[in-house]
Amino acid sequence: MNAPDTPAAQAAKFAELLAQARQPFPASRKVYDHGTLHAGLRVPLREIALTNGETVSVYDTSGPYTDPAARIDVRRGLAPVRDGWVAARGDTETYEGRPPVALDDGGHNDGSSQRLAQLRADAAGLQRTPRRAKSGANVTQMHYARRGIVTPEMEYVAIRENGRRAWAREYLSNAGRESRLAGHTLGAIMPQIIMPEFVRDEVARGRAIIPANINHPEVEPMAIGRNFKVKINANIGNSAVTSGIDEEVEKLVWAIRWGADNVMDLSTGRHIHTTRDWIVRNSPVPIGTVPIYQALEKVGGVAEDLTWDIFRDTLIEQAEQGVDYFTIHAGVRLAFIQLTANRRTGIVSRGGSIMAKWCMAHHRESFLYEHFEDICDIMKQYDVSFSLGDGLRPGAGADANDEAQFAELRTLGELTQVAWKHDVQTMIEGPGHVPMHLIQANMAEQIKHCHEAPFYTLGPLTIDIAPGYDHIASAIGAAMIGWFGTAMLCYVTPKEHLGLPDRDDVKQGIIAYRIAAHAADVAKGHAGARARDDAISQARFDFRWEDQFNLGLDPDTARAYHDETLPKEAAKVAHFCSMCGPKFCSMKITQEVRAFAAESAAREQGMQEKALEFRRGGGEFYVPVPTSP
Amino acid sequence: MNAPDTPAAQAAKFAELLAQARQPFPASRKVYDHGTLHAGLRVPLREIALTNGETVSVYDTSGPYTDPAARIDVRRGLAPVRDGWVAARGDTETYEGRPPVALDDGGHNDGSSQRLAQLRADAAGLQRTPRRAKSGANVTQMHYARRGIVTPEMEYVAIRENGRRAWAREYLSNAGRESRLAGHTLGAIMPQIIMPEFVRDEVARGRAIIPANINHPEVEPMAIGRNFKVKINANIGNSAVTSGIDEEVEKLVWAIRWGADNVMDLSTGRHIHTTRDWIVRNSPVPIGTVPIYQALEKVGGVAEDLTWDIFRDTLIEQAEQGVDYFTIHAGVRLAFIQLTANRRTGIVSRGGSIMAKWCMAHHRESFLYEHFEDICDIMKQYDVSFSLGDGLRPGAGADANDEAQFAELRTLGELTQVAWKHDVQTMIEGPGHVPMHLIQANMAEQIKHCHEAPFYTLGPLTIDIAPGYDHIASAIGAAMIGWFGTAMLCYVTPKEHLGLPDRDDVKQGIIAYRIAAHAADVAKGHAGARARDDAISQARFDFRWEDQFNLGLDPDTARAYHDETLPKEAAKVAHFCSMCGPKFCSMKITQEVRAFAAESAAREQGMQEKALEFRRGGGEFYVPVPTSP
Repeated sequence: MNAPDTPAAQAAKFAELLAQARQPFPASRKVYDHGTLHAGLRVPLREIALTNGETVSVYDTSGPYTDPAARIDVRRGLAPVRDGWVAARGDTETYEGRPPVALDDGGHNDGSSQRLAQLRADAAGLQRTPRRAKSGANVTQMHYARRGIVTPEMEYVAIRENGRRAWAREYLSNAGRESRLAGHTLGAIMPQIIMPEFVRDEVARGRAIIPANINHPEVEPMAIGRNFKVKINANIGNSAVTSGIDEEVEKLVWAIRWGADNVMDLSTGRHIHTTRDWIVRNSPVPIGTVPIYQALEKVGGVAEDLTWDIFRDTLIEQAEQGVDYFTIHAGVRLAFIQLTANRRTGIVSRGGSIMAKWCMAHHRESFLYEHFEDICDIMKQYDVSFSLGDGLRPGAGADANDEAQFAELRTLGELTQVAWKHDVQTMIEGPGHVPMHLIQANMAEQIKHCHEAPFYTLGPLTIDIAPGYDHIASAIGAAMIGWFGTAMLCYVTPKEHLGLPDRDDVKQGIIAYRIAAHAADVAKGHAGARARDDAISQARFDFRWEDQFNLGLDPDTARAYHDETLPKEAAKVAHFCSMCGPKFCSMKITQEVRAFAAESAAREQGMQEKALEFRRGGGEFYVPVPTSP
Repeated sequence: MNAPDTPAAQAAKFAELLAQARQPFPASRKVYDHGTLHAGLRVPLREIALTNGETVSVYDTSGPYTDPAARIDVRRGLAPVRDGWVAARGDTETYEGRPPVALDDGGHNDGSSQRLAQLRADAAGLQRTPRRAKSGANVTQMHYARRGIVTPEMEYVAIRENGRRAWAREYLSNAGRESRLAGHTLGAIMPQIIMPEFVRDEVARGRAIIPANINHPEVEPMAIGRNFKVKINANIGNSAVTSGIDEEVEKLVWAIRWGADNVMDLSTGRHIHTTRDWIVRNSPVPIGTVPIYQALEKVGGVAEDLTWDIFRDTLIEQAEQGVDYFTIHAGVRLAFIQLTANRRTGIVSRGGSIMAKWCMAHHRESFLYEHFEDICDIMKQYDVSFSLGDGLRPGAGADANDEAQFAELRTLGELTQVAWKHDVQTMIEGPGHVPMHLIQANMAEQIKHCHEAPFYTLGPLTIDIAPGYDHIASAIGAAMIGWFGTAMLCYVTPKEHLGLPDRDDVKQGIIAYRIAAHAADVAKGHAGARARDDAISQARFDFRWEDQFNLGLDPDTARAYHDETLPKEAAKVAHFCSMCGPKFCSMKITQEVRAFAAESAAREQGMQEKALEFRRGGGEFYVPVPTSP
């Protein structure tokens, strides 16, 4: 390892990386669709211009960063697009907010106060006056939905899920294909066109959530629900030695560039509050946290010293900053802890361990469970969504679907109904390590006991023996559980079990999960999902290499791989590729097959002549090329 | 690109790489199990010594290369372990063999004859007098099996599939886990112990094959069948500019080191015959080829100039060299070609294209189909197995499970019965691009129409939009179809659709497919498969880092990833890891949970006291560490 650069040098490096990550994708431009119920909605898409004149547009998680027209200063944060919507509802008020406490940035007294002062200076322009519900009001999307209100957020989501279907329809309308390729929904509802009213209804039933804290007006609304596109979450956390705001924002921008629909900030340790200011204010995607991590910092890392008051204060602190969902491990009940005693790997969730520790030390029921309604009261004032944590998820295939996991799951189902009583949006966390043959049962159990609240699963990892490749071992399980009904997949990087993911690991994890999510969308028949596959397949067939790269999930890598073998520009329009070379082109022959099939009507009259003609007509199998070394 | 090195420099480079690839895996040694029916069988395993004194042994595809006791000279080939077995059967004879023809090494007259002479000199020590069946004899494993003979090959396979179960049983016997974790066989038969008689029966029924040409005595027998471990195949091919024997053998050794059970030599172009000598003589795994590729070279690349005589001659040439299975696209019938006319990507198999081209040009039924019994007559004289090629496999999700694919599949089923009439071992090639929801139907169709002959599938790729990551897009489908009943998975590398895989791409493809195959084995409940998962999970739980690396599929990468974050040797026995650090260790707490559970009997008498005791007893959540930067 080289000696670390100075903070200033590192900051400069990350500012440069951030500038790079703002580059639009190749042949792509940001476009916006508009609302009809709500004027002024600007719903982003990425439009890819193909070399044959077509345009293909795709769902875009990258936010304003890939819009060259957007002026972004990470020290001032993104434009608060939702501010007007929230204010217009008239049910919130601004207020002074909770006074900051020294402990908010960690209890370590390590002589770094000067450094902290400097980091906070970077967040000075990011401070906002918080909003909360007026006394007695409930400002959750679920609350509005249940009262029949289609919010701007809901219409936004509908437009975003649909995308531009004109191009997609052309691909999908190919005769005779639909029934075979329509997917197996396995009980999901896959409307051809998603109407705002459908979104409202799904949110009202609790089958979908729109994580959108009123204090995170920068968010581009998105839905997590079984009847929408499968989403993915990427985890980021502050570095041991944070160089500053540019580094943290760059991580975020990098993750959403490659397709993270949500980001969880799992920072622990130092500067946790300030780092969160940086991330939330600059994030167009919902941000989730695990508040118990910060609460634990505040009590010096001693789990049994946690109290409801400290936890409650932390929830308010984070709700005021704009965190969109909280992972809360309220299902780790005292009585369940001993169910993990004979497991192969016990309790592997950090939050689960902390709560187990607390319960054992006090021999008391979890304070999260006991105060669950109090937590709901906070959540509904800000519209923070629950992500009910799976503190007892299996850390080995041998522990999958065991009584500990399912006892907690049933409790999460019970808590879901409590949350819904308060109209608090709720999703349920799940999996971990689950062999393939147990995945469907796990999903079925969730649907049964959690009343169709969205499932949000880590992987699952289908095997345990792939350290260094757990993004792959888990993408298998993620694709399957996504098809079976999971609404959001929490990514796993190649470093899982081994170390902290670096920039490339984050990208590898995200791409693996975009693959899994898309495979699930195609399998469950999400309207329009397969059109992109058709477009890239057509480009492949037509030898439109540039289009093939640009329609892929990672154009840079596809292009680089191609160029390793055939670097010349000319090869990108050549009617062959490096696998078979010009002599063995298997796709080219289909053009001949089509001519041949067209002749079939005439065949009865002159089969032999036709064949002769075909040969005479120069039915060459390949284009002759000069022999070259 | 740098200028290529001289052939001599390249040869030296590959000789060095080959030496490296011969290094045993960390903490591993090659051990051998022995037969009871047949004396002298030495069935290889890799035994991994754990730091806690346990040993775990795993299936080993790497051959003698990882045995430091083996003397290997790639210019003389591996020891012919099966020579005695074949000779002892008394039904074969050596003979002069087909005379070599200049065209065998390609029809290119490009002034490289001097180079070719040099390459052939490398193969001089690899020439063997071929064997074939005595007149009227049939020397296939299927033929013996049907006559009730348990060959050494069959006993070898039984021993190999079982591995050493003593260590595995200890892991698997954990109380109460078995029913949940036994897997869902989905119709496969998963004996707890595989007896040689079981192998014989499976081969006799055609449900498994043991690819083992009598002219490939170097092979370590292995079985491909639904009721055995799922196998994987890696493709290699000669380079545009081959530096020599070391390069080609190094590719092979690299592939089997990481777990390729079979290797297909898909070389085209120059030096194809000589390269094959190098590969077969040095391969402990079965080698497959697509003979039509070489036949096409012999007619200058003009598909319509192919004749039965040239093809037949090529089959004999390759059978004499020792190729273990031939991909033969005999299911691409004239009438099916037009079924591909409206496909998104037409015909994407090279072999399929060649045959479609031939049929169209002559407007005649395929000569492979018409001469199928003649082909069987050759196969049974050498025990070459059929891999009935899927020339019409889909190249896009949109073309999956269409009439072209299934018409060919039904024909392959028909041909299987013809092959079985001759007791020729047969497997069926399948998939390509198939969305998740169509995979099970594809497998069901194969089982139904192909009479349970082993299925050997490429991927399938579940989506089309992941160029650069198709090893992942396809590992998802491969794991699923492996569970559903596919016997062997043909790997896909990250370069699929883009370029020629390099050394690292080959490794990436193989590891992704080992993951898929193992996930399938665990899901279908292959006896013992999950024990390795349990062993690695236990190592994880015990913080035995070295064991975790060494039990993984790729110890080198796991160790390297770990060391990026925590490079110190001390960290490898530390009771924490880099994800959570010493303060957040979630596994450590389980030790406390166990103590807690043990106390439960005593709880009624003194619950509160116990809790107090626990705290007093120093129930620390983490071990205190000095604050460090």
